[in-house]
Amino acid sequence: MTDTATPPSLSPLYFDDFHVGQRFVSGTHQITADEIKAYAALYDPQAFHLDEEAARDTFFGGLAASGWHTAALTMKLVVDVLPVAGGVVGAGGDLQWPRPTRPGDTLHVEVDIVELTPSRSRPDRGSAIMRNTTRNQNGEAVQIFTVRVPLPRRVAG
Amino acid sequence: MTDTATPPSLSPLYFDDFHVGQRFVSGTHQITADEIKAYAALYDPQAFHLDEEAARDTFFGGLAASGWHTAALTMKLVVDVLPVAGGVVGAGGDLQWPRPTRPGDTLHVEVDIVELTPSRSRPDRGSAIMRNTTRNQNGEAVQIFTVRVPLPRRVAG
Repeated sequence: MTDTATPPSLSPLYFDDFHVGQRFVSGTHQITADEIKAYAALYDPQAFHLDEEAARDTFFGGLAASGWHTAALTMKLVVDVLPVAGGVVGAGGDLQWPRPTRPGDTLHVEVDIVELTPSRSRPDRGSAIMRNTTRNQNGEAVQIFTVRVPLPRRVAG
Repeated sequence: MTDTATPPSLSPLYFDDFHVGQRFVSGTHQITADEIKAYAALYDPQAFHLDEEAARDTFFGGLAASGWHTAALTMKLVVDVLPVAGGVVGAGGDLQWPRPTRPGDTLHVEVDIVELTPSRSRPDRGSAIMRNTTRNQNGEAVQIFTVRVPLPRRVAG
């Protein structure tokens, strides 16, 4: 029920260009220990994100990226693969981190189109529910973000 | 039903130190246009996060911070006010951005303890549902993140 569209179209995507079951697969990003520590120093300065030694005896049992760092890298990968007309925005959604991102992990994102809803009041608008699953090099999910994304329509219906 | 604990204790906080209805209020962070653009260049490179002129005719009608930037700043403010023993971690939750963060906004976070649950299987563990509301200088919510946070117990029950 899914197909893969990689590399993506470089032209802007409208509501009318999507279908339920469609999947977009992003490029990859390999994260380093230095990146993990630099992000954490700015936004999530806790031992398990800052220092290998200090991380050993914590919840994570070793250095791990802040979940918000995984989220940030995910957004970059999504923006690069999904040129939604007018931009990729969302009012929020359900965010899960099933496992941490570790130094050296190579991440990619699978964007699945779960639902498409035309606007009842505005013929030039619609929205999609997208499930963005971020996976490491072993195929393990490190983040799942399910979000409703507004989409412009190409042709008023 | 809420009380305010600011400034917070500097000693680590355990499950036993929390009660439902408790509120922790963070310090503040004033965000600049340059910060918004620098974050966006790395993680969310879209016109409405990168350039005032280009942002004018978009969904946001002007420069706005990436929601993930608001989330990152929120985490920093939470970590600074809430010294949970073993660290502030979460497996995910419900994330909402009711309105964007704008250049010059001064953000703070209110952490509300919504629910406390002792572990059934482990007398040294419990968890809290926390609602972290990030507000701008007008008191308007720019982010609400509701998350279950594991907490160690001070005394095995």
